[in-house]
Amino acid sequence: MAEKPQTCTFSHEYLEDFTANVFVHFGIPQADARQAALVLSASDLRGIESHGVARLLAYVELLKEGLINPRPNLKILRETPSTAAIDADNGLGLVIGPRANEIAMEKAEAVGSGWVTVNHTNHFGIAGYYPLQALERDLIGWAMTNSSRMVAPLWGAERMLGTNPIAIAFPGDEEPPIVIDLATSAVAFGKIEMADRKQQELPLGWAIDKTGVETSSPAAMMEGGALLPVGSNRDRGGHKGYCLSAMVDILTGVLGGANWGPFAPQFVMRHRVAERDRTVGKGLGHFFGAMQIAGFMDPAEFKTRVDDWIRTFRATKPAPGSDGVLIPGDPERASEAERREHGIPLVMPVVEDLRQVARISGVPFEAE
Amino acid sequence: MAEKPQTCTFSHEYLEDFTANVFVHFGIPQADARQAALVLSASDLRGIESHGVARLLAYVELLKEGLINPRPNLKILRETPSTAAIDADNGLGLVIGPRANEIAMEKAEAVGSGWVTVNHTNHFGIAGYYPLQALERDLIGWAMTNSSRMVAPLWGAERMLGTNPIAIAFPGDEEPPIVIDLATSAVAFGKIEMADRKQQELPLGWAIDKTGVETSSPAAMMEGGALLPVGSNRDRGGHKGYCLSAMVDILTGVLGGANWGPFAPQFVMRHRVAERDRTVGKGLGHFFGAMQIAGFMDPAEFKTRVDDWIRTFRATKPAPGSDGVLIPGDPERASEAERREHGIPLVMPVVEDLRQVARISGVPFEAE
Repeated sequence: MAEKPQTCTFSHEYLEDFTANVFVHFGIPQADARQAALVLSASDLRGIESHGVARLLAYVELLKEGLINPRPNLKILRETPSTAAIDADNGLGLVIGPRANEIAMEKAEAVGSGWVTVNHTNHFGIAGYYPLQALERDLIGWAMTNSSRMVAPLWGAERMLGTNPIAIAFPGDEEPPIVIDLATSAVAFGKIEMADRKQQELPLGWAIDKTGVETSSPAAMMEGGALLPVGSNRDRGGHKGYCLSAMVDILTGVLGGANWGPFAPQFVMRHRVAERDRTVGKGLGHFFGAMQIAGFMDPAEFKTRVDDWIRTFRATKPAPGSDGVLIPGDPERASEAERREHGIPLVMPVVEDLRQVARISGVPFEAE
Repeated sequence: MAEKPQTCTFSHEYLEDFTANVFVHFGIPQADARQAALVLSASDLRGIESHGVARLLAYVELLKEGLINPRPNLKILRETPSTAAIDADNGLGLVIGPRANEIAMEKAEAVGSGWVTVNHTNHFGIAGYYPLQALERDLIGWAMTNSSRMVAPLWGAERMLGTNPIAIAFPGDEEPPIVIDLATSAVAFGKIEMADRKQQELPLGWAIDKTGVETSSPAAMMEGGALLPVGSNRDRGGHKGYCLSAMVDILTGVLGGANWGPFAPQFVMRHRVAERDRTVGKGLGHFFGAMQIAGFMDPAEFKTRVDDWIRTFRATKPAPGSDGVLIPGDPERASEAERREHGIPLVMPVVEDLRQVARISGVPFEAE
């Protein structure tokens, strides 16, 4: 008997069609379902598997329980020429994100910049998706979101903040764009899970246990411990990671009128019991920005300058034992080129999740 | 014979008057000189001594050599309702920063937000000064600047980026504001200098030597080595610190039309020989932002929500051996309260610098 494969590989088009059909099954209009599928696919293509179709079952469970509104009416709560606050009517984050980002981009095209907070929403995929849309219109795009609690503030012993990412991108001319997309935690939760499965120790600086002490045990983090913010501890700048995470939480959750900090809702159904005892707003919060490059500099000149920046940094003297300095976005772009050609490899637990999605939705899914 | 004092203490008003008079001596108009003195004083009051009057001699040397323009005419190079690009005419950063920030704030009051790049400038003091100005007008202010090279990108073996700070602030109602002001390096250069003077080892994660290897020797960092970005190495998220530093460099230097990366000019005269072989713009670059709180949410409601955030985070279960979670800006505010009442203690090398400033300028300075 042949050994079971570790992964199954699918074309991104196949996964996009499957995902879109699943969303349509739950009453999401065709165009929105396609948009949502593209956001998830962008994540798988760029090698950030944790935020791609690996999350489809979680979205489906929420849709099935009626906990996400398939046909939201976005409401603009406040507006100036360059800002807006939106209530997303509990729509799917993968649909809401692109719509809110569109409003930021339209404002930027009208008056130079646009800044949009969103509440009453949920997970919007990878933050990096949104500034990539802005690039196509000669805009510098920003995106942030808060998320369910996972990270301890410096000198805290409990989860109070999400991994709260920041994304921004800058176009080159001959060079590819610089794409920055970083969680403000020292490490992604997925790395803890992976170490746990492989029974490996964690490097110190990633996590604390439930008493607040740094731990190298993945299980100790997962059982009531927390991730640390980037910088890890006071010596290495853990206060800076905490400050950045706080900044994201305040712009998205507090300013947006969403839940913030420890009150941010859990994404996955089976975690929902762990929620805190009060709500302080509606859903999760996002923050989008867009700035016209031409509002500051001729876009052609800017792109030439970005090319020069990229070439100068690539030519940095490399540290011993390394392949030298990368440009932000390099690994994701390499992944995307590979996966557009050769397909997206999914690990078997994700394939199993998609089979379950197929059973729930009746949308056929083929995996041999 | 009595032991020499380790510090001399001065009232902030005395230092502000001295500083303003020195700047007037070099042809800076009275109001600008006073503004510049207030920016330096804010730094000393908030306990960030490295950016206060400790830098006065460096500014004076540049003014004396005619390398700073005492009466700059700011030129708006490009403008939209919510953006502007400014050529600062080689004015003193301490004068230019407040003026450019004012333009950002005026645009925010007019159309919801304002974003301003500045080139042809030099050091503007602490980044945190600028969002504090915005708070007084119910604006959320942002400030960034690039600076002379000191930090290696992840997997690089040479200095390519400045310590490139990011600052932003949010007002509370009954609670004091949340003030975030962080360099994107793992640690300030001042801590390396201090360890060198005290002949102490550095923690790993702060610095590399001139071959690109992590070092615990302050001298090895100072002699051709570099600081590391926040996160330090790949395991702990050094790529994130590098990305943040790159973001600041591109928004300030590349987008602003200033020098960027390794080409950012040196601040201190005696370091000027170390400059790179080409210029890629004018002077240093800054980036200021301001957003109307009312563009997103009723300001009173926002401040109440910030109060709730602050109280919730203060109540975080504390890590063992710590005093618990601080709110960003707490240490600086405590310092300011203490120093407004009891004065600013200056270490003797700084007092010696000020005596030299007095000799150069003829402005009397009293230190017993």
